[in-house]
Amino acid sequence: MDIAVLGTGRVGRALAAGLHELGHTVVVGTRDPAATLARTAPDSMGTPPFSAWQAAHPDIALASFADAAAGADLVVNASNGAATLDVLTLAGAANLAGKVLLDVSNPLDFTHGYPPTLFVKDTDSLGETIQRAFPQARVVKTLNTITADLMVDPRLLGASVTVFVSGDDAEAKATVVALLTAFGHDDVIDLGGIETARGPEMMLPVWLSLASTLGTTRFDFKVVR
Amino acid sequence: MDIAVLGTGRVGRALAAGLHELGHTVVVGTRDPAATLARTAPDSMGTPPFSAWQAAHPDIALASFADAAAGADLVVNASNGAATLDVLTLAGAANLAGKVLLDVSNPLDFTHGYPPTLFVKDTDSLGETIQRAFPQARVVKTLNTITADLMVDPRLLGASVTVFVSGDDAEAKATVVALLTAFGHDDVIDLGGIETARGPEMMLPVWLSLASTLGTTRFDFKVVR
Repeated sequence: MDIAVLGTGRVGRALAAGLHELGHTVVVGTRDPAATLARTAPDSMGTPPFSAWQAAHPDIALASFADAAAGADLVVNASNGAATLDVLTLAGAANLAGKVLLDVSNPLDFTHGYPPTLFVKDTDSLGETIQRAFPQARVVKTLNTITADLMVDPRLLGASVTVFVSGDDAEAKATVVALLTAFGHDDVIDLGGIETARGPEMMLPVWLSLASTLGTTRFDFKVVR
Repeated sequence: MDIAVLGTGRVGRALAAGLHELGHTVVVGTRDPAATLARTAPDSMGTPPFSAWQAAHPDIALASFADAAAGADLVVNASNGAATLDVLTLAGAANLAGKVLLDVSNPLDFTHGYPPTLFVKDTDSLGETIQRAFPQARVVKTLNTITADLMVDPRLLGASVTVFVSGDDAEAKATVVALLTAFGHDDVIDLGGIETARGPEMMLPVWLSLASTLGTTRFDFKVVR
């Protein structure tokens, strides 16, 4: 498939590289490709500049959000949750229409410091918000409870872990489950419609708490049954 | 220890029986013992009347919330989350002062139907609410992410699962961890102060979604790392 990954951070890079390794043609989308490539210093989290990453991944192109989405069969939203609606608007509703929109974002609000709170929860979710804003996209929420490296290589943990999918379109979910399986996920639970994204999104507080307690983000949840 | 279990529902019964089996002296607390014992029909969830359960557990006494708490070294809050502050007020702040208050309740709001929403979340939790309302109690939040049977017998699942503890008092948490270990829990993660109860309480939406999808409540989360 031709896949657009919207977002140049750790999550976007991991997914872009993972999807490329599976044999897909991947274009990473960003707000301003020239500005993204012009950065030479690590960001505030210590992530190396995108240009350094791209040098190691020469087959993955960089384009504007709109150009990336326009050429894609499937679009991955790997943008910061707070920026997601803006990013998808720039990608363009017409460029998302009819396409699977694999959404891994979380509604984290860092404006009051750390730990972040959730800017949507309980009676709504970011997954639902995206689906309402882009009704012709086929939104599938998944992978939001897992750190970037493990999204595309869950076997790093050496034990089976669980990944959730939520979405209203059964065919879109099947496409996403096939990608997850190709990444090595052996326990995918389909929770139901996009409203079930509330559950995995509300796991972020315990996820952040665990990351702090365990001193690592390399962990994941297994639903034992 | 002398232990009071506040609540006569499935969770209270499971914990009372489990603690009794460990050798503790257990008194179940209820609003009106005579009224509780007078019921002869199953409740709306099909749970048999308390009198039937007590006949099978003759060594476990029934008393008012206040009498149960007054005689206890440790108090378990197994009441409905929406009733919890009322129940603890009836138990009496003086009867809780200085004692470990093991809180398994969830802030579920069923007033708008099913699935329930959470009446406190994200920037606060029911655990913190209880600690603020009863500052002399030593609140430890735990077991709220597990169905009643598995709380006291996690080995039923045949694989290790994770249980969380949150609380401000290290000695109280150590007392609770000893009880959890005696129940068979082999993976207890201390998340930190009582404010970390937000994380496990916010797991309820995905827990309820999983119960619905899997068709059983007999499952639990393992933090794989």
